[in-house]
Amino acid sequence: MHYRLALLGFGNVGRAFARLLQRKEAELEQEYGIRFIVTGIATGRHGIAVDPNGLDIDKALDLVERGNSLSLITQLPITDTLDFVYSVPADVLFENSPVNHENGEPAISFLRIALERGMHAVTANKGPVVHAYRDLTDLATRKKRKFYFESTVMDGAPIFSLFRSALPAAQLTSLRGILNSTTNLILGRMEEGESFEEAVQYAQQVGLAETDPSADVDGWDASIKVAALATVLMGVPLKPQEVERTGIRSITPEKIAAAKAEGKRWKLVCTAERDGDRVQGRVAPELVSPASPLYRVDGSSSIVEFHTDTLPALSIVEGNPGPETTACGLLADFINAVRS
Amino acid sequence: MHYRLALLGFGNVGRAFARLLQRKEAELEQEYGIRFIVTGIATGRHGIAVDPNGLDIDKALDLVERGNSLSLITQLPITDTLDFVYSVPADVLFENSPVNHENGEPAISFLRIALERGMHAVTANKGPVVHAYRDLTDLATRKKRKFYFESTVMDGAPIFSLFRSALPAAQLTSLRGILNSTTNLILGRMEEGESFEEAVQYAQQVGLAETDPSADVDGWDASIKVAALATVLMGVPLKPQEVERTGIRSITPEKIAAAKAEGKRWKLVCTAERDGDRVQGRVAPELVSPASPLYRVDGSSSIVEFHTDTLPALSIVEGNPGPETTACGLLADFINAVRS
Repeated sequence: MHYRLALLGFGNVGRAFARLLQRKEAELEQEYGIRFIVTGIATGRHGIAVDPNGLDIDKALDLVERGNSLSLITQLPITDTLDFVYSVPADVLFENSPVNHENGEPAISFLRIALERGMHAVTANKGPVVHAYRDLTDLATRKKRKFYFESTVMDGAPIFSLFRSALPAAQLTSLRGILNSTTNLILGRMEEGESFEEAVQYAQQVGLAETDPSADVDGWDASIKVAALATVLMGVPLKPQEVERTGIRSITPEKIAAAKAEGKRWKLVCTAERDGDRVQGRVAPELVSPASPLYRVDGSSSIVEFHTDTLPALSIVEGNPGPETTACGLLADFINAVRS
Repeated sequence: MHYRLALLGFGNVGRAFARLLQRKEAELEQEYGIRFIVTGIATGRHGIAVDPNGLDIDKALDLVERGNSLSLITQLPITDTLDFVYSVPADVLFENSPVNHENGEPAISFLRIALERGMHAVTANKGPVVHAYRDLTDLATRKKRKFYFESTVMDGAPIFSLFRSALPAAQLTSLRGILNSTTNLILGRMEEGESFEEAVQYAQQVGLAETDPSADVDGWDASIKVAALATVLMGVPLKPQEVERTGIRSITPEKIAAAKAEGKRWKLVCTAERDGDRVQGRVAPELVSPASPLYRVDGSSSIVEFHTDTLPALSIVEGNPGPETTACGLLADFINAVRS
């Protein structure tokens, strides 16, 4: 089985994925009979390269990391991302463009076009999951292709595939977790005496928080993850805007100190609970005591505890995530899409 | 798809599985297109029942729970378990006989006969996994059937299926966990002031420890689980006898008190580490500090932390297990075997 891969987005995650593909090339062939070439790479600021015979991944990485344009190695003169998706000769599209919390575009269109063209569609982008999960999944089914998105929640930790393949016939009744790394890191730094502003700055320095940190500190990222989990795992469409949302701006150094004195910690806790035909989603700071599995989730680690009608409590904890772990989710989606 | 199921073993787990099958009957048909009848049940002390047209599960449960014999409802006069496996008209065998740490028999023979006869073979019995994993898996492959055993480690928590389906191309380098519920419960009760003997008695009362508690307290059960994980997930055959094994008999109330004074806890810790072509397996009591994810694993809960070449740290935690959760693993194996 020989696959032509197209990468849309070549930032930290896209490049980590390209390196992971290189590292795992021999294993993919030996263990899964999968051979591949990368026929297209589209970036936001470093141009687009397409080569039906396969691009040199090392060269592409080198060009982008030196700030040069991929147009130097393209065989087809393409400058527009939509043109790229319409014309790249590929069997799988890996869509890693920036998230749009509002409506999921333009990623949804990119994925739809890819599926219409007969490609598998894999994304690390939460937007299309919360805004078009049903549509894209149905389209994929009609086209006998897959729409997978393991990397959208908890990086590369297997969450969606767990329910898809390892936990059949388990009905998810509720979940509870810490799903936003940035706020967890910020709260941890504040426990060590930093101000909110210092902690945000640190999170920006290590590449976790954006220049405008509001998506994290106001709970939007956590809300979109709750919406994605409810939509896919509970089968109830939930928009991020429908999640009851409180960020961490109200958690002052005084509150942190008071919690510490009691032996507790403030955590930004995500919950989703089935309530008849609906799901109640909630993101809010909570005081967590040492008896809770959430208490010891430090830094950028994350946790989710699932309650189902079969297993009463199953938790998944991911430690030390990074672009490399997100890339692992893309690789797992690729393998699972083509071997199923 | 219509399946005839044979249950070998009808103790707590076997009966919980029968009830789970009843509860999930409609869901199995709607979601997976799976219909089933139970054509045979073999017990150790309550006889054997076979009916090619399907047994009445309620009647079978009732007979066994009242201490009566299944022979009252059988259509075929069978009294020997081996005869049962050779002759029951079935498509899937669920093997739940008592574990034999030494050599895995007679369960291995039962499973081999079932596979030879063209059945899928599902077991909650660790013996066949550590003593015949490769053989039974190869036989299953030749017969185009499955040999699955999700319930052997951490009850119904998805461990083996996680690596089989959700984490492709992840090479397991080491693992660390608490895998024996009985000793974890005993150590917890001792922290609350009970003597070793009192704690063992309590574990026996709640049905966790056997009359002879040595399989648990001497670390055999934990060792066989380490061996199973190494054999299947690391691809390196490891026998329970090759696991470096120390039980909890040396953990005195004094040691427990001293640990508590330091803010630490004694836990029976399981580890397996890849070392070139070999795997080092180890079971031993360790002092665990609050920073460890193992610290808060209480009562009969369990945890395993996986370190792979792709995800640096992924933990699975199972809370509140019981015969019902073990039964969930059997159900997942059934669905995954027939839908793959």
